Amino acid sequence: MKIVIIGSGNVAYHLCKAFAQNHISVAQIFGRNETDLKQISAELDIPFSTTALADADLYIICVSDDSVSEISKLIKNENSLVAHTSGSLEKEILSGNYRKASFYPLQTFSRAKMLNYSEIPFFIEAEKREDEDLLLNLAEKISKKVMRSTYEKRKYIHLTAVFSCNFVNHLFARAKEISDREEIPFDYFLPLIKETTQKIEHIEPKLAQTGPAVRNDQRVLQLHEELLPSDEHRKIYKTLNESIKKMYEL
Amino acid sequence: MKIVIIGSGNVAYHLCKAFAQNHISVAQIFGRNETDLKQISAELDIPFSTTALADADLYIICVSDDSVSEISKLIKNENSLVAHTSGSLEKEILSGNYRKASFYPLQTFSRAKMLNYSEIPFFIEAEKREDEDLLLNLAEKISKKVMRSTYEKRKYIHLTAVFSCNFVNHLFARAKEISDREEIPFDYFLPLIKETTQKIEHIEPKLAQTGPAVRNDQRVLQLHEELLPSDEHRKIYKTLNESIKKMYEL
Repeated sequence: MKIVIIGSGNVAYHLCKAFAQNHISVAQIFGRNETDLKQISAELDIPFSTTALADADLYIICVSDDSVSEISKLIKNENSLVAHTSGSLEKEILSGNYRKASFYPLQTFSRAKMLNYSEIPFFIEAEKREDEDLLLNLAEKISKKVMRSTYEKRKYIHLTAVFSCNFVNHLFARAKEISDREEIPFDYFLPLIKETTQKIEHIEPKLAQTGPAVRNDQRVLQLHEELLPSDEHRKIYKTLNESIKKMYEL
Repeated sequence: MKIVIIGSGNVAYHLCKAFAQNHISVAQIFGRNETDLKQISAELDIPFSTTALADADLYIICVSDDSVSEISKLIKNENSLVAHTSGSLEKEILSGNYRKASFYPLQTFSRAKMLNYSEIPFFIEAEKREDEDLLLNLAEKISKKVMRSTYEKRKYIHLTAVFSCNFVNHLFARAKEISDREEIPFDYFLPLIKETTQKIEHIEPKLAQTGPAVRNDQRVLQLHEELLPSDEHRKIYKTLNESIKKMYEL
């Protein structure tokens, strides 16, 4: 099976790397950004092109949501299977006369950061059962956690990921603004952060809640409101405390 | 030096355990809850009492903020040093004629969960320099990360911890409500959560931000608003996305 990866960003890079680590050959990596393509090509020994899309049995599109439809029009081979990697797009966004699929890895990818691919859940959907099986088999060569998933489900997976990843990172960023202002090294908070996330591997998050809001500790809540350095901090503080109180019916 | 720990909750338990692991003898653990005290006493071989507070050189009070003042009145030894373990109380909350201090471990403690005490930052404050040195030395037997800290600073440390621990855990709880409703095992999100927190050990959180808000992806933001299962989810979603947009001036 001839595989072509389209895109040169973090998802494309890590997917190429995961394939390489598992001895799955990628025939070409195709995209617009020559600098990035050259780097990936050199590191992982995969041919690249910015102009001539190679013929393939399977195209995996790893570009931003906005570009998926446009990029997918470049694929002219009607006997190919084309999958995108987005958590929030239907497979029907793919524009062409080929078999359509979704190949969604649930992870946050940064270029510099090594990842254990075998732990990344992959969610697979295709029009035909045999294509779904093909993609399941392919993903299973990378990861231990591969599942079928419809778009209906995938969009909720993506929404859950926004709460537990994107929003969590933003809280870290806002927390760091507070500690930076007071010249408290943010490193001090890393063991606490690590423990907070390790805890929920064993304890239901709802049962692991600590802090002034769940204790309904009015004195501390009041004290904190006076310390908050900006309106944005204040809004987050109020919204999350109110949500905590609602959850525990305080 | 004779040390007595007051309290029988998670902080008291883990502090006793950290002392025991580092061959620091605790003369007594004192509190109200006999069941908990008995358990700690049996596990760590420390005498306990619910009625007769032992005489000591150092009392460390590990009870909820609300009870610190009341409990501290039980200490009659004017030659003793008394420290509480709260992040959001002044040492002056201690009510008695003894030397007052704060001994604040920055961590979230659960009974069942093992902890690496050497990584827990301790923040120390006392009225007298020699008491501060004594507590610094004691904490350094447990941890590699021991610092002096005033109440002024400690309350900001606690506030930062609320953002990066308590609020983060609440996001996990709200995220799980979404995945539970859709019958998506929350386990799927654990590698993503782990990666989100590991990332900030190497990358500034502000630079690590991903997701629809920082991309200003109106289509996904709109789609998500339709999927949110409750008003509380909706308020969190709006507040955090607005805060993200403000941070990146979108």
